[in-house]
Order: sequence, then C-alpha cells, then structure tokens
Amino acid sequence: TCSFGIGGVDVKRVRSMVVVKAETGGVNSINPDIRKNEEKVVDSVLVNELSKPLTPYCRCWRSGTFPLCDGSHVKHNKATGDNVGPLLVKK
Amino acid sequence: TCSFGIGGVDVKRVRSMVVVKAETGGVNSINPDIRKNEEKVVDSVLVNELSKPLTPYCRCWRSGTFPLCDGSHVKHNKATGDNVGPLLVKK
Ligand code: FES
Ligand code: FES
Repeated sequence: TCSFGIGGVDVKRVRSMVVVKAETGGVNSINPDIRKNEEKVVDSVLVNELSKPLTPYCRCWRSGTFPLCDGSHVKHNKATGDNVGPLLVKK
Repeated sequence: TCSFGIGGVDVKRVRSMVVVKAETGGVNSINPDIRKNEEKVVDSVLVNELSKPLTPYCRCWRSGTFPLCDGSHVKHNKATGDNVGPLLVKK
C-alpha cells in the first residue's frame, strides 16, 4: 500500500497500479490540442481587416474556432476553477 | 509498494508518501496567478489607441506585463514542452 496526494486530495491504500495523466501535451502545458505540429502558435490580427466593432480572441486554448473565442473558456473555468477569458479587440 | 505514472513517466516502488501538486489554482487550470480575485479575466484592446504598428498580447498567462506579452511564453514552453505564443495585433 502507499499514500499520495494530487491537488490536495489524498489517495490512500492504493494496492496495484494507478495511472495519473495530467494533461495531453505534458504536465502544466496549457495547450492540449491546438496546432501541436507548430513549435510556437502565434497569430496576427490586422485591425484594418476587422469586420465587426468587437472581436473576442481566445486565451484559454480550448476554442473550436481558435484564434477566435467561441465561449469554451466557460466550460474550462467551470471544470477547473480557473478564471480565464478572452481578449476583446475593439475598433 | 505501489506503481503509478504521471505524464507517461512511471513512478515505481513508492514506500511511504508522495505528494503531487499539479499547479497553483487547481488541476488543469492555465492561469496560476493573474488577477485571481476576478471571476473571469477579460481585457480590451481599443485599436484606435494602439501606439505601435505591432503589439503582442499574452495567451500563456505567465507575462509580467499581462495582458501584454513580455516573452515569458518561451520559459513556459521550454519547461513544459508546450507550444503557446502571443496574439500579434497589427495596425
Ligand atoms: S474560448 Fe478560449 S477564451 Fe473564450
Ligand atoms: S508572455 Fe504570454 S504569450 Fe508571451
């Protein structure tokens, strides 16, 4: 038997094997899925080409329309207790 | 004794206690420190007020000048194997 804790939760009396996988892409990575073939994901906004007065851009790396925000930060925040939100670009 | 794995790394023959703390702010949170007193961190860019032709905005939640990017994504990517980078706002 052994005892260990994850995020403050104690896990006791483990008899055989426990597999803990923190997140796809490595412990403490914040982008599990988006364009993992790129060494660094950088995007550009050309402000002259913005069509709407307000465009939200994703900073949670969970959007289905990345680099745009599709509201997925709400699910991420609820699931994890996080408090991330988008960058609003206004013209 | 017991055996478990974290991020693909097996940890074997643990005899007493192991404490695994994933990240400040909860497992899988991506913002450990910035404005944790706010329920959701949202920022605005007014494009008419941009002073430079190119302004990088942080999407890694590690910048000392958040919401601006200060290059801290480089350290985060190296430490974790992640591939995050800024949003470049260009006028
Ligand atoms: S979906 Fe990522 S910040 Fe909104
Ligand atoms: S410091 Fe966060 S993206 Fe550059």
